[in-house]
Amino acid sequence: MAKAAILGYGVVGSGVYEILCGNSENIEKKAGQRIDVKYILDLRDFPDHPHQELFTKDFNDILNDDEVSVVIEVMGGVNPAYDFSKAALLKGKNVITSNKELVAACGTELMAIAKENSVNYLFEASVGGGIPIIRPLNQCMAANRVEEIYGILNGTTNYIMTKMAKEGADFDEVLKEAQRLGYAERNPEADVCGHDACRKIAILSSLASGKFVDYKNIPTEGITEITRADVKFASKLSSVIKLIGSARLFDDGKVFARVAPMIVPESHQFASVNGVFNAILLHGDYVGDVMFYGRGAGKLPTASAVVADVIDAVKHIRTNKWQEWIDKGSEFMVDASKVAYRYFVRTKDASLGKEFANAQSLGEIDGEYGFVTEEMQEGEFLQQLSQRGTFIRML
Amino acid sequence: MAKAAILGYGVVGSGVYEILCGNSENIEKKAGQRIDVKYILDLRDFPDHPHQELFTKDFNDILNDDEVSVVIEVMGGVNPAYDFSKAALLKGKNVITSNKELVAACGTELMAIAKENSVNYLFEASVGGGIPIIRPLNQCMAANRVEEIYGILNGTTNYIMTKMAKEGADFDEVLKEAQRLGYAERNPEADVCGHDACRKIAILSSLASGKFVDYKNIPTEGITEITRADVKFASKLSSVIKLIGSARLFDDGKVFARVAPMIVPESHQFASVNGVFNAILLHGDYVGDVMFYGRGAGKLPTASAVVADVIDAVKHIRTNKWQEWIDKGSEFMVDASKVAYRYFVRTKDASLGKEFANAQSLGEIDGEYGFVTEEMQEGEFLQQLSQRGTFIRML
Repeated sequence: MAKAAILGYGVVGSGVYEILCGNSENIEKKAGQRIDVKYILDLRDFPDHPHQELFTKDFNDILNDDEVSVVIEVMGGVNPAYDFSKAALLKGKNVITSNKELVAACGTELMAIAKENSVNYLFEASVGGGIPIIRPLNQCMAANRVEEIYGILNGTTNYIMTKMAKEGADFDEVLKEAQRLGYAERNPEADVCGHDACRKIAILSSLASGKFVDYKNIPTEGITEITRADVKFASKLSSVIKLIGSARLFDDGKVFARVAPMIVPESHQFASVNGVFNAILLHGDYVGDVMFYGRGAGKLPTASAVVADVIDAVKHIRTNKWQEWIDKGSEFMVDASKVAYRYFVRTKDASLGKEFANAQSLGEIDGEYGFVTEEMQEGEFLQQLSQRGTFIRML
Repeated sequence: MAKAAILGYGVVGSGVYEILCGNSENIEKKAGQRIDVKYILDLRDFPDHPHQELFTKDFNDILNDDEVSVVIEVMGGVNPAYDFSKAALLKGKNVITSNKELVAACGTELMAIAKENSVNYLFEASVGGGIPIIRPLNQCMAANRVEEIYGILNGTTNYIMTKMAKEGADFDEVLKEAQRLGYAERNPEADVCGHDACRKIAILSSLASGKFVDYKNIPTEGITEITRADVKFASKLSSVIKLIGSARLFDDGKVFARVAPMIVPESHQFASVNGVFNAILLHGDYVGDVMFYGRGAGKLPTASAVVADVIDAVKHIRTNKWQEWIDKGSEFMVDASKVAYRYFVRTKDASLGKEFANAQSLGEIDGEYGFVTEEMQEGEFLQQLSQRGTFIRML
C-alpha cells in the first residue's frame, strides 16, 4: 500500500481526494497497489469533512512520516510550495503537482533533486488541465524532434474570444459575464494578460528542447486590447482571433517562444476550439502535426491528470523517469524582432496600408481601416508601423 | 547498449530503421542507453542496402541471440507474426508492433505471455499511426473510467469522404483517384469495408474495458454504399459523413462497439478532420472529452510511434508495464439492435417519412427523398424501415 499526502485542499486538492477515494478499486488495479490518503495539509479548517483525522497544519507531520511516499502539491504559487516540494524530494518522496507557476520557476532544480534521489517530480496537470500533453510530449513523441508547439492554453481567454466572435460583444462586457459565471477570476490579470499561458508554453518548450526556457524571457501579450472591430476584420478574413502560446525549436538549438493573440483561419483545427476548451498542436519531424484537445481546467479534469501522475509515481516508486531540462542561460533564445509573420493592422489612417508592400486591404469598419501585410520580420514591421495602428499576427 | 531486431523491411520497417539510425543520439538520451539494430528479417533481398550484414531470412538467428532484447514486429498479418512474437516473448524479449490484425486477434494471449516473462508487448502504432493514443488511454486516463470512444480511425476512407464532401464526387471516382495517389490499396476492401477501423476500435475498447472485445463481434459497415445524394442531404443538415469506429462502456460492465458511417454536424471537432488525418475522442468520467488528432498512417509517423515504444521498452527492460485485457467471452457485448440513434434515411418512396413519428423532412435530391427520424432503438427502426430505404446513423 502507498500512502499519499495532499498539500492544499482547494479546488484541485479536493478533486484529487474525491477521485482517489471514489475510484480506489480501479486505481489500485492500475497502480498495482492501494493508494491511501494519509494527510491533507491546509491552514484552513474543514469542520464538515468526514475525515478530520487526515487534516494537519504542520508540513513536518508529512515530511517526517516515512510511510508517505507520494506528496501531491496542489497549493499553487511559488511559496511555500517550493520549500515543501524540495524538502519532500530530498527525503525521497515523489512529488506530483498541478502548479505551473512553481514548475515554470523552479522545475529545473526540483527535477534535478528528484533525479538525485531516485524519485519523480511529475506535473502532467500543470499544462492543459485534464488533456494528456506532458507524457505524450515526453514519451510518445520520444522518437521525434519537436519543431513547433502551438497552444490554446488558457480557457478563460478562449471563452472570452469565443463569445466576442459569436456575439460581436466587447471585451469588457464578456469579461464581466465570464466573471459572473466563474470562468474568470475576480482579478483576471493572470489570464487575460497572458501570464498563465506564458508559464505553460515555458514548460512545454523547456520539455521539448531539454533546456530551461525562462518564462521571464517570453514576450507575452494578452487579449485586453482586442476590439469588436478586430473580430469583425478577422471575420472578413474567414478567421477568428485566439490567444496562442507558441514555440519554435530550431535545428541549431535555438528556441523562440511567444504568447500573443493570433488570427487563425477557420479551416485550422484551432478555429473550432471554443469556450473553455484548450488545444495543443505539436509538430514533430517524423510524425508531422499531432493535436491534443480537451478541458484545460476545472476541478475533476485537472484532478484526474494529477491522479494519473500519482499512479505512475507509485508504479515507478524509487525509479526516476527521464524528464528534465537543463539551465543553459538564455543565449539560445531567439530575438523576437527577428521572427517573421504576416500582420493584420487596424488603423484610423486610411492611407497607411499603401505604405506596406503588397498589403491586402480589408476596407473600413466603424471608421477604422484594416489591412494585412506580407511576411515581414517583426523589427522591420514595427519600425514601419511606427505606432500608427494596432496589429495582430497571423497564424 | 540494447540490441533490436526488425521483422519485416516494408514501409514501416524501413521507417523504423531510418529513425533508429538517423536519430540515434536523441534516442540514446531518452532511452538511457544506445539502441542498435542487429538484425533485419525479411524474405526478400535488398541488394542496395549498405548494411547487408544485418539481413537474415532465418528467425532463429534472432530468437537464439541473447543479446537481442527488443523485437520489432512490423510484418503485418497474423502469420507468421504470431509465431515469431510468441517465441520472442517466451524467450524474454520485448516485442513492439504496429500490427493491428495480430493485436486484435491474439493480443490477449501475447500480453499475458509478456507479463509472465516480465517483458512488454507494446503496440502504440497499431491504432492512429503516429497519434499517441494507446499510452494516453492507458496511462494519462488511468484515473478515469472511459465511457465512450469515437474515432476517425482510417485515413483512406476519410480521404474519400472528404473528397466526396468537397467535390460532390462519386465514391467510385474518388476511390480510383485515391488508388492512383497511393492513399488506397489496389485491393481497398480492408479500408473501405471498415475492417481496418474495426480492428482498431476492437483494440481501443479492449484496453479501455480491460476485457477482450473480439473484432468478430463488432458490427461493421463500410462506406461503399454512400452516394453523392447522401453527401448532399448531409450538407442540408450542416453535416458531413465520416466513417466512425465507436464504443460505449456501460456502468454495469457491458460494452458496445460498432464501425459505420455517421452523419457528423459541422460544429463537431470531427467535421474538420479531413484527408488522411485521424482523430480519436475519449470521454472519461472525470476529464470529460479529450481528443487526439494527427496522421493515422504513413511510413515515418507510424515508425516514430514504434520507436517511442522501443524507447519505453528499453527503459523498462525486464519490467512488465500494466497493459492488458482479459478474455471474458462475449456475454458482456450489448446487442446492436438495442442501441438507439437518430437516423438519416434516403428513399425513393416520397411518403415513407410520414410513417416515422416526428420525422424531419430534408426534401428531394435527384429523385430521392431524405428525412431524419427521432431517436429509436435500432431493431425497432430496421423493422419499420423494412428495407424501403438506406440509412446513416447520426452522431
